[in-house]
Amino acid sequence: MSASASIDTIQFATRDSKDSIENGLAFAPKFDENGLIPAIALDHATNEPLMVAYMNETSLKMTLALGEAVYWSRSRSEIWHKGKTSGEYQVVKEIRTDCDQDAIILKVVQLGGGCCHTKNPTCFYRKVDMATIASEETAPVALLKL
Amino acid sequence: MSASASIDTIQFATRDSKDSIENGLAFAPKFDENGLIPAIALDHATNEPLMVAYMNETSLKMTLALGEAVYWSRSRSEIWHKGKTSGEYQVVKEIRTDCDQDAIILKVVQLGGGCCHTKNPTCFYRKVDMATIASEETAPVALLKL
Repeated sequence: MSASASIDTIQFATRDSKDSIENGLAFAPKFDENGLIPAIALDHATNEPLMVAYMNETSLKMTLALGEAVYWSRSRSEIWHKGKTSGEYQVVKEIRTDCDQDAIILKVVQLGGGCCHTKNPTCFYRKVDMATIASEETAPVALLKL
Repeated sequence: MSASASIDTIQFATRDSKDSIENGLAFAPKFDENGLIPAIALDHATNEPLMVAYMNETSLKMTLALGEAVYWSRSRSEIWHKGKTSGEYQVVKEIRTDCDQDAIILKVVQLGGGCCHTKNPTCFYRKVDMATIASEETAPVALLKL
């Protein structure tokens, strides 16, 4: 991906019609009532899920311009260029959007030690232990470490 | 996965502390201010992204109990047992959650003709055409069909 673009030159299309959004080839991302779109990072080589985060319009344009994942931190209410403090940059190899263009998939190369602040390589390091889905007695659902 | 459980017997843990949420093995999903958690369905065999949707507490419990993906339709404001009208059920093979337990990954076997109402096998059938990220002139971003 190019790292030479400026975000000022990047334009998104207007969301004119359901047909153009679903079948067209103009990128018209939908930002929700908070100005955000969910973005899911998958490992470029394996498609393993790494993390789910959110982008606002500026961070999506920065991602396109830089070729590195830039999110919006909802907890800190600020632009979050992932890796800038940790070294755990995500080099973006491909960006997909879905039928109604209200979600983003990033296929990335994860740099640094891993994706997650817990030091796990992915944020999705636990799965539901299906054996704890009780059929008769009320029971809490447990997780298993992957 | 078991399809014999009742949703009445399924309990989620309380979100007591950051440490227990991140490092514990109790499933304590976080529903947002609208009562929803994002759920991303990936193909069980290839991890290819299929769709992004949302679950409320009831639909997540139904997913666990049935072993099939059940979402909350934001447009129709109702429980959405995917496939019930189209035959495009998603058989859930694994459910993961992330560090702060505010997102869900479903690894599924997609039944029927495909995942998307547009008749594409996945909702993510387009990618950003990086050649349209202009470095100097203002230009709209285009998509490419996969």
